[in-house]
Amino acid sequence: MYGRYTQELGVYAREEAARIREDGRHRRFISERSPSIKLLEYEKGRCVKCRICAVHCQRFLMSRVGEDWIFLILLGLVMALVSFVMDFCIALLLQAQKWMYGGLDSNVILQYLAWVTYPVVLISFSAGFTHIVAPQAAGSGIPEMKTILRGVVLKEYLTLKTFVAKVVGLTCALGSGLPLGKEGPFVHIASLCAALLCKFMSFFGGIYENESRNIEMLAAACAVGVGCCFAAPIGGVLFSIEVTSTFFAVRNYWRGFFAATFSAFIFRVLAVWNRDEETITALFKTRFRLDFPFDLQELPAFAVIGIASGFGGALFVYLNRLIVQFMRKQKTINKFLMKKRLLYPALVTVLISTLSFPPGFGQFMAGQLTQKETLVSFFDNRTWTKQGMTEDFNYDIHSAAWKHPQANVFVILVIFIVMKFWMSALATTLPVPCGAFMPVFVIGAAFGRLVGESMAAWFPEGINTDGTIYPIVPGGYAVVGAAALSGAVTHTVSTAVIVFELTGQISHILPIMIAVILANAVAQSLQPSIYDSIIRIKKLPYLPELGWGHHEKYNIRVEDIMVRNVRYITLNSTYRDLHEILLIANLKTVALVESAESMILLGSIERAQLQALLSQHVGRERRLEFIRDAERKRVSVVSTPSSEEGGPKVNHEVRFQISTEESSITPARPISPKPLKPALKRTSTAEKNIEIPTNSGIGLKNLLCARPQTDAMEIEEWEEQQLDEQVNFNNCKIDPAPFQLVERTSLHKTHTIFSLLGLDHAYVTSIGRLIGVVSLRELRKAIEGSMTVKGVKVRPPLASFRDSGTSGTSSESEATELHKLWDRHSGLSIPREQQPNASDSDDKSQ
Amino acid sequence: MYGRYTQELGVYAREEAARIREDGRHRRFISERSPSIKLLEYEKGRCVKCRICAVHCQRFLMSRVGEDWIFLILLGLVMALVSFVMDFCIALLLQAQKWMYGGLDSNVILQYLAWVTYPVVLISFSAGFTHIVAPQAAGSGIPEMKTILRGVVLKEYLTLKTFVAKVVGLTCALGSGLPLGKEGPFVHIASLCAALLCKFMSFFGGIYENESRNIEMLAAACAVGVGCCFAAPIGGVLFSIEVTSTFFAVRNYWRGFFAATFSAFIFRVLAVWNRDEETITALFKTRFRLDFPFDLQELPAFAVIGIASGFGGALFVYLNRLIVQFMRKQKTINKFLMKKRLLYPALVTVLISTLSFPPGFGQFMAGQLTQKETLVSFFDNRTWTKQGMTEDFNYDIHSAAWKHPQANVFVILVIFIVMKFWMSALATTLPVPCGAFMPVFVIGAAFGRLVGESMAAWFPEGINTDGTIYPIVPGGYAVVGAAALSGAVTHTVSTAVIVFELTGQISHILPIMIAVILANAVAQSLQPSIYDSIIRIKKLPYLPELGWGHHEKYNIRVEDIMVRNVRYITLNSTYRDLHEILLIANLKTVALVESAESMILLGSIERAQLQALLSQHVGRERRLEFIRDAERKRVSVVSTPSSEEGGPKVNHEVRFQISTEESSITPARPISPKPLKPALKRTSTAEKNIEIPTNSGIGLKNLLCARPQTDAMEIEEWEEQQLDEQVNFNNCKIDPAPFQLVERTSLHKTHTIFSLLGLDHAYVTSIGRLIGVVSLRELRKAIEGSMTVKGVKVRPPLASFRDSGTSGTSSESEATELHKLWDRHSGLSIPREQQPNASDSDDKSQ
Repeated sequence: MYGRYTQELGVYAREEAARIREDGRHRRFISERSPSIKLLEYEKGRCVKCRICAVHCQRFLMSRVGEDWIFLILLGLVMALVSFVMDFCIALLLQAQKWMYGGLDSNVILQYLAWVTYPVVLISFSAGFTHIVAPQAAGSGIPEMKTILRGVVLKEYLTLKTFVAKVVGLTCALGSGLPLGKEGPFVHIASLCAALLCKFMSFFGGIYENESRNIEMLAAACAVGVGCCFAAPIGGVLFSIEVTSTFFAVRNYWRGFFAATFSAFIFRVLAVWNRDEETITALFKTRFRLDFPFDLQELPAFAVIGIASGFGGALFVYLNRLIVQFMRKQKTINKFLMKKRLLYPALVTVLISTLSFPPGFGQFMAGQLTQKETLVSFFDNRTWTKQGMTEDFNYDIHSAAWKHPQANVFVILVIFIVMKFWMSALATTLPVPCGAFMPVFVIGAAFGRLVGESMAAWFPEGINTDGTIYPIVPGGYAVVGAAALSGAVTHTVSTAVIVFELTGQISHILPIMIAVILANAVAQSLQPSIYDSIIRIKKLPYLPELGWGHHEKYNIRVEDIMVRNVRYITLNSTYRDLHEILLIANLKTVALVESAESMILLGSIERAQLQALLSQHVGRERRLEFIRDAERKRVSVVSTPSSEEGGPKVNHEVRFQISTEESSITPARPISPKPLKPALKRTSTAEKNIEIPTNSGIGLKNLLCARPQTDAMEIEEWEEQQLDEQVNFNNCKIDPAPFQLVERTSLHKTHTIFSLLGLDHAYVTSIGRLIGVVSLRELRKAIEGSMTVKGVKVRPPLASFRDSGTSGTSSESEATELHKLWDRHSGLSIPREQQPNASDSDDKSQ
Repeated sequence: MYGRYTQELGVYAREEAARIREDGRHRRFISERSPSIKLLEYEKGRCVKCRICAVHCQRFLMSRVGEDWIFLILLGLVMALVSFVMDFCIALLLQAQKWMYGGLDSNVILQYLAWVTYPVVLISFSAGFTHIVAPQAAGSGIPEMKTILRGVVLKEYLTLKTFVAKVVGLTCALGSGLPLGKEGPFVHIASLCAALLCKFMSFFGGIYENESRNIEMLAAACAVGVGCCFAAPIGGVLFSIEVTSTFFAVRNYWRGFFAATFSAFIFRVLAVWNRDEETITALFKTRFRLDFPFDLQELPAFAVIGIASGFGGALFVYLNRLIVQFMRKQKTINKFLMKKRLLYPALVTVLISTLSFPPGFGQFMAGQLTQKETLVSFFDNRTWTKQGMTEDFNYDIHSAAWKHPQANVFVILVIFIVMKFWMSALATTLPVPCGAFMPVFVIGAAFGRLVGESMAAWFPEGINTDGTIYPIVPGGYAVVGAAALSGAVTHTVSTAVIVFELTGQISHILPIMIAVILANAVAQSLQPSIYDSIIRIKKLPYLPELGWGHHEKYNIRVEDIMVRNVRYITLNSTYRDLHEILLIANLKTVALVESAESMILLGSIERAQLQALLSQHVGRERRLEFIRDAERKRVSVVSTPSSEEGGPKVNHEVRFQISTEESSITPARPISPKPLKPALKRTSTAEKNIEIPTNSGIGLKNLLCARPQTDAMEIEEWEEQQLDEQVNFNNCKIDPAPFQLVERTSLHKTHTIFSLLGLDHAYVTSIGRLIGVVSLRELRKAIEGSMTVKGVKVRPPLASFRDSGTSGTSSESEATELHKLWDRHSGLSIPREQQPNASDSDDKSQ
């Protein structure tokens, strides 16, 4: 303020005004929190320049907070820390079990009790904690993420509560030593991290409120999850793409790579700092021969692994679903378990722990090894069966577990595979945070090792090529098997890349690729992936994939599958028509056409909007008004009533207001998105009726009961009259550009468009005329083959096999239910931006 | 026939009829070519059953031909063979040069002549052959494939001629020893293979005629191209996705993996069978330490490589474009070169060969090594600078080239990098089939090696960690540099994966990922990728990418960029309106609205359709009819003319028919898709007029000249009258569902939808009312920042720098020209299926 006073006050005032004006403009772009430089300019002192500079820097940083890479670095950092800490805790928990088990070796019974009690406590705690804090945290999380990335909002899946439940629950579950994985939950945890970080960052800039951006960030987070779980950035990105996306924007690619690489880097650097490792290397480092990794003539064996893994993977998915369905169908079991929620996890844990008790049956299946140790022993490149190498063999503590005085290595491996197979399928049904990837990976490695050991026994001198002896490396077979089986269960090819990054060697690339592709080919034709299977079990909304090269899809057209009898309203519709449509049809949106003759599609209106229109017109407010008018008229006719009567009348009115609150107010405001979980539990029709506006019917009855003094006939007459009026669409949000298809659009293209844009329905038009509607339900029907088109029953090959497997889930009733679910999640399915200032945009874009 | 005669003839006849009926039904699904089983059934003989079985098998196989995997296997096989044979020929050609050069070592001048003449002949032949057979074969091919996969049809790019030209031309070009690559051309060759295979396979089944399927197959082919070029299936798939796609359908993923793996497998198996290799291994096998690949403290050096590569990559793209633009702008040079087409390649070859002549300047840049040998020497894990290892060093013949008595290794490496840098940028502008990937890869490796050697010289004992000495591996740096620079030039992350597969080692994964991501970050902010640069140079239609995290994109809305003054026709339009719209507007499609008042969008009509409508109504046919009528009337009035006059009149008519053939018939049939190349050369307005229907104007004049006997006034009157009639849209193909946006759709979402669906324009509607249109041009303008939105000039960061680089290409005039190009390629831009039976579908879906 000092320098300014030399100038004239008028000039100063003008300048000040100009500055304020400019400031106002400026503030749109710069965060308002940063301290004003202007203020500093008026201060005196030595370090004013420094402080101005600091403020500038701060301002610059603030403006940069909106940049993607800051977010991605933060995400990577947080996830790496979470991953590292969790790994540390899990390792501690597993060590504790070993320590207990080792310390009690004097008494087998005590040993057994310790061995069994420990996991039971952990699993029960995990299940209980998850159930109390956030039931959404149970299970893998990948199916939910797939649904969310498709555009459906499952809001409770991305909250802080869920994060806590998932992290704590997963740590305990994995610490128990049960065959559970951490990949799926890590995807979920990373997504939670990203969602929370978005929320946190939105304090700094508005860009984090943009929904389509958040979805891009979630996609990157999925990659980070896998990436820092296995320290496999490339595999992580690819796996997350394959597992969660249908269409992938290549421009988002770098986000995943950037965040996953950073995360994997920090994750491994932490290990180096913690003195676990000398430098950054792979998690399960292998040391296979580089110059002659495998013989060409070994390829058939690798192919056999691939095909067998394909069948095995399909069986695993089937078994997993079978267990879930069995538990659900058996009502007595179900009821009992519902009451005692912790009993099922505890029982399963007791069963699995007992069987793997090392002095008991566990000695035949290397029960004392943890998952990690098992994998390390499988990936070892020394042969277990050769006679000459017994000294070498005994040297390694992990490999020693596979050596049993009474049993052959092959027998032990077979027992291990069979036992772990059903154990894993069973354990992954527990209501704790857990994934299926790692257990399957281990089983695959065991199977590969089995084949490898057999080959080594069959060709003890290796397969001869030109005199040089290259012995067979069973570890290579284990790697191939692991990639193939996990690829088959998850329907992904990128497990191959994950395996390269996990082992740090890429020398077996061709056998692995061949096995993975074969396994995928077999598994995909038999069963859905484990994640799709869970999606179906949980009845999340989904769109089935088009199978491998079923070219019938190119010949089916929309006109074959569309619903021709479309519910619509016209510009001239009366409120009665509106009411009827709302009563009859369950559709989430109703088409608006110009007139019943022209049928020109003008747009679509959401159900909630129509309900609002109706209740505005014949709802409580207007009805009360009418009654008041009527009363007033009667008063003037019948002469003044006693003043006592006035008291109860007011009372009545208030009571009425409360009693009809539910039925008349609810439809008036747009239905807020409900959590999916409770929705899933509803029976389809019982509660549905609540949503149908009951203003005209039930509301009327209420009115009649509540106010006997007003003539019922009169109200009814008034109502009838009101219902016959033309609808006034002025205050109604109309989506003017609902997606339209042409009747000859092929099923293939329709599927592409639906999955590209995340649609749930599209209108079929012909020169602007509405002629039909296609929704997800019709599309699903057509794809899954339960529709007859042009006299030919279109079924993908092996569909019958698949049906028998999912007979409980893929029935028509489920389809309708799912469809209703879709209806309920109105407007959330399309990647539609949430405008920052909702008030000005709502009336136009929605 | 024998067995049947025992039955009664009537029964037999009935049976026969039933069989024929059923046969007819059957035949719809089974290829009609397969010999009839029925015929065989009547034959007698021993092996009838066998033959029936064989026929069944054949039939089964035939029906399977439509399956994707058969196609993919064939594609992989063919490409592997092509790749192997080409590699073999290239190696032969390179050997021949070495042999000549070695044989003439007595005389330096002769040696020099041989050294220079050989590549000049090869390159000239390659350029000439390409120019004569198929000029489209010149260059990389990836930019064109990107355009094709976006949905634009560049038909001549996928013909047998182009295939031959590309294969022969590429073999010769690479055999010359110039710094040229084969990756890009291989993508093109694989796509050519796929297209030809599709054509070939369509003999067996109709499925190969489906266009959207063919595009899927082309995407797979791109992966195969890269995959079998480097024996890198995973990297190939990822690279091809990053380079060619904007949105990627995950369901097509497996196709790429399947075909690329098979192809890479066969490619490497051929090498084994040819006794080049003992078993299947990587192409450039490295032997780095597995247990301690690099120290954490080396990471800054890797980061420096990444950042420097980013700048280098941008510079390379800039230099390449600069050379092309310089050659184009210098009109005297241009004219001269146009005449002597082979002179430019020859001159460039002479220049490059002379500089790399080993006894001359070549001794300072390892001129005698081929690209492959150079790479092998770079990836060597022994240090060149250490004193103690000189014996080791001299041992390897390739590494010896880097040792010069007068010059330091560092000096030689720097000279190599600088020389190769501009040589590669220059060589890739030659009109021969060539890519830029491999030269850049080699330069990157050289740069990495330089850094690595410097590090090794700086820390001769390695960076100390805990007493153990791990010397620095310069080969690792070379690998990092190669991945980083090639990633920067192509804007891809997957070069990292390609490098892993090329070297067979993944131990350096983190340094490589970090370097590649940094290089990409730098390069993407400075320059477009080499492929996008070529797209702009060649002026192919494109949609720019949204940059990294420019969140202004979320705040711009369609209403800010749309064109509000939309040309439309209404249902009540007269032919005059039609005519005017066709004269004024250049748009490819015209919006059809209900009426000018309601503005309800009913659909869009293609320009060609309108032209057809117009010419049907006031075209030659109708005009002749009218004239005939008029004549007849006059005849009846004026009395009978002499019979001689009948002769010339008919003559006249015939002559007229021929002379106006062009102007009146052409617009009547839909304009066939024209090749892009000639279209590019046109000036924008000169030829445009041809497409505007000249029926009413010029056609009329023709008529007047041709038939003086009919009154001109009368015809004009008739014409005016005809033009004032209402348009009859009955026979017009209307697209009833053009893509619609809402005015508040964000730029980000619009871009997504445009690139997802391959649109070139979309209408903006508000409750069914047409209020604007957005085309690629507006979108490009908005993204590239040459538009002022809400008073703020939206420019991506560093756009000014980019502008100065592309000042010649990104100007407004180019934009308009490009836009017109889009207009011309009407209807081809969307993945719209070509229905198998065009006749029945055309009238509905187009």
